[in-house]
Amino acid sequence: MSEFIPVFEPLLDGNEKKYLNECIDKGWIGSNGPFVKQLEHDFSAYCCQKYGSTVTNGTAALEVALQAMKDEYSWSDYDEIIVPSFNIISSAQACIYNKLKPVFVDCEDETWNIDVNKIEQVITPKTRGIIVVHIYGLPSDMYKILDLAKKYNLKIIEDAAQAHGMTYNGKKCGSFGDISTFSFYTNKHVASGEGGIVLSSDKNLIDKVNYYKNLCFTKDRFVHNHLGHNLRMSNLQAAVACAQLEKIEKTIAIKKHIGGLYQELLKNIPAKLSKAKMPYAENHYWVFGLVLNDDIKLNAKTAMEKLAQANIETRPFFYSLHLQRAVLNLGIKDNISRPVSEKIYEKGFYIPTGLTLTVEKIEYISNQIKALF
Amino acid sequence: MSEFIPVFEPLLDGNEKKYLNECIDKGWIGSNGPFVKQLEHDFSAYCCQKYGSTVTNGTAALEVALQAMKDEYSWSDYDEIIVPSFNIISSAQACIYNKLKPVFVDCEDETWNIDVNKIEQVITPKTRGIIVVHIYGLPSDMYKILDLAKKYNLKIIEDAAQAHGMTYNGKKCGSFGDISTFSFYTNKHVASGEGGIVLSSDKNLIDKVNYYKNLCFTKDRFVHNHLGHNLRMSNLQAAVACAQLEKIEKTIAIKKHIGGLYQELLKNIPAKLSKAKMPYAENHYWVFGLVLNDDIKLNAKTAMEKLAQANIETRPFFYSLHLQRAVLNLGIKDNISRPVSEKIYEKGFYIPTGLTLTVEKIEYISNQIKALF
Repeated sequence: MSEFIPVFEPLLDGNEKKYLNECIDKGWIGSNGPFVKQLEHDFSAYCCQKYGSTVTNGTAALEVALQAMKDEYSWSDYDEIIVPSFNIISSAQACIYNKLKPVFVDCEDETWNIDVNKIEQVITPKTRGIIVVHIYGLPSDMYKILDLAKKYNLKIIEDAAQAHGMTYNGKKCGSFGDISTFSFYTNKHVASGEGGIVLSSDKNLIDKVNYYKNLCFTKDRFVHNHLGHNLRMSNLQAAVACAQLEKIEKTIAIKKHIGGLYQELLKNIPAKLSKAKMPYAENHYWVFGLVLNDDIKLNAKTAMEKLAQANIETRPFFYSLHLQRAVLNLGIKDNISRPVSEKIYEKGFYIPTGLTLTVEKIEYISNQIKALF
Repeated sequence: MSEFIPVFEPLLDGNEKKYLNECIDKGWIGSNGPFVKQLEHDFSAYCCQKYGSTVTNGTAALEVALQAMKDEYSWSDYDEIIVPSFNIISSAQACIYNKLKPVFVDCEDETWNIDVNKIEQVITPKTRGIIVVHIYGLPSDMYKILDLAKKYNLKIIEDAAQAHGMTYNGKKCGSFGDISTFSFYTNKHVASGEGGIVLSSDKNLIDKVNYYKNLCFTKDRFVHNHLGHNLRMSNLQAAVACAQLEKIEKTIAIKKHIGGLYQELLKNIPAKLSKAKMPYAENHYWVFGLVLNDDIKLNAKTAMEKLAQANIETRPFFYSLHLQRAVLNLGIKDNISRPVSEKIYEKGFYIPTGLTLTVEKIEYISNQIKALF
């Protein structure tokens, strides 16, 4: 029996401490601190976008991104946004809070990303944008999505919260969106505990993000013409994120190493593993997922319980958004079938890929997984 | 001409660095870190409440507090919450986002706190609660407010974001609310850059805050029955707040010293100063405000511009909530007159009370203020 193996663990071996100590020495802890500005500059440059605006987390990033877009493009209430059904609730919620209607599209069996071939059939005259999410570390097929966006005059919201530093056909994830969002949650390639950022090359959009995220303060300070939120990120979080960004290539190399080992060790089990590569991208394994084969009686829940007994932490796959009671209760329902995302929830889970994981632990985990069958 | 004097500055001379370094050494940066738990425990104990739940900031604290209360007490949409008109927009916004109607009550000329004598006349059968805000460092008259709450069966939301460590008749601010909220913004007596907390002695309420602030995750992780938010505070912010809480009495002593000096140096100017004490409380001078006399031609804006030329940063007083276009645009209007909060916006501003302020600077600021007349 191994010691407890968490599903993720950050690696804080760069300038994190140095920068945090600088925050304290200089009294810079608030959201107007220099690491906030540095992170906004460096991260947007890294992702090939012109501007960045830090926020409290990736969920907040999506919420304020849609708020800015709805305002900038004069979208109407209940205009439609296409959202992958296999995804965390944040993207659906961001639509709902902005009085936009999420329309869910099933995912591909192979990549677990949005099924590009199923997008066109849900486009209506009210469709305004597509939230693209690069699931678990493998980019979505952006060129096809961009073609659709052009054909139907749709905006792209690129949720790259699982895809820091990844590339699609050699171009950085986060560079494709009219607006792009990232999370700096503890398990991300750039981690600050909690944190996030909105990127764009459209200054108007980022100005609006900056306005809405800061309570819609005006030149007259406490005079407010609109309602916003306080979504400001502190300089402490930004200090850690800056240090993390400096060594993102090392982080990605570790993740690819872990993923590569799992691919090798688990290649013969009766399950579909995270896709190693597609013609347009390699996987960086933000997480390493597996979907048990249909003809195996075992489901994800039982497998996860057994692994927990072996001290291995896992996480279930996303529960399809079109099935969430939180969404259905609002009357958001239709007759579209989304069999893939429904199935992979039943059969899928992901396993530890913490940055401090040793080869021995990876072998132990793999052996425990093989013992399930 | 002095060097630039900011309106506030934190003092980070305790265990801030030590605790932050511990976060990095142990890999504890996320919201599940031990400083988060410690802060929730220690801060609620300090404020004589049983439970605490940290959040991203004070605005978020109010939003999720009302969300929890509306759920717990089964309030209906557009039930009414009494809110001081002299106050930052966050309290009105928290009502609006939770589909509750804010009803604004004017403030007292002397304390700038809610005018307790004007509360009863706005109570209707739909009134459910009162948001009490301790403005600028002087507690509101809680016993009278609690009497009204008892008489009309209203809940108290005590917004103590400006009142860390202050007491009303010997009892801690934050101990009076059915739910109480605090901010840990950089200029607060307990500062973490950005941050906040919700306190209560009702476990159901705090359980609901914990649920809504964490995306309404369930035991089945990604299955959501309700829509929430991500309002989680990181362990980094909590580490700094823990260090700050350890030396809050020192912070308060510095603030009282600064306030006392201003009281002395400015006692003869034609302006009303922050009230030093009431029978039930002393001022801790979260900020030091002054309201120019009616018979003086000078208004706040001009005074602030002149002080800015002398390198002294100031802030305007709050703009009355019942006059905010962000509120009026939603159709929230009535015929109640609120002359005091309207007047003090025109005539009021506050001056530097940063924790690193020297006696020389306080004298310089006071001399520049006297030179205005």
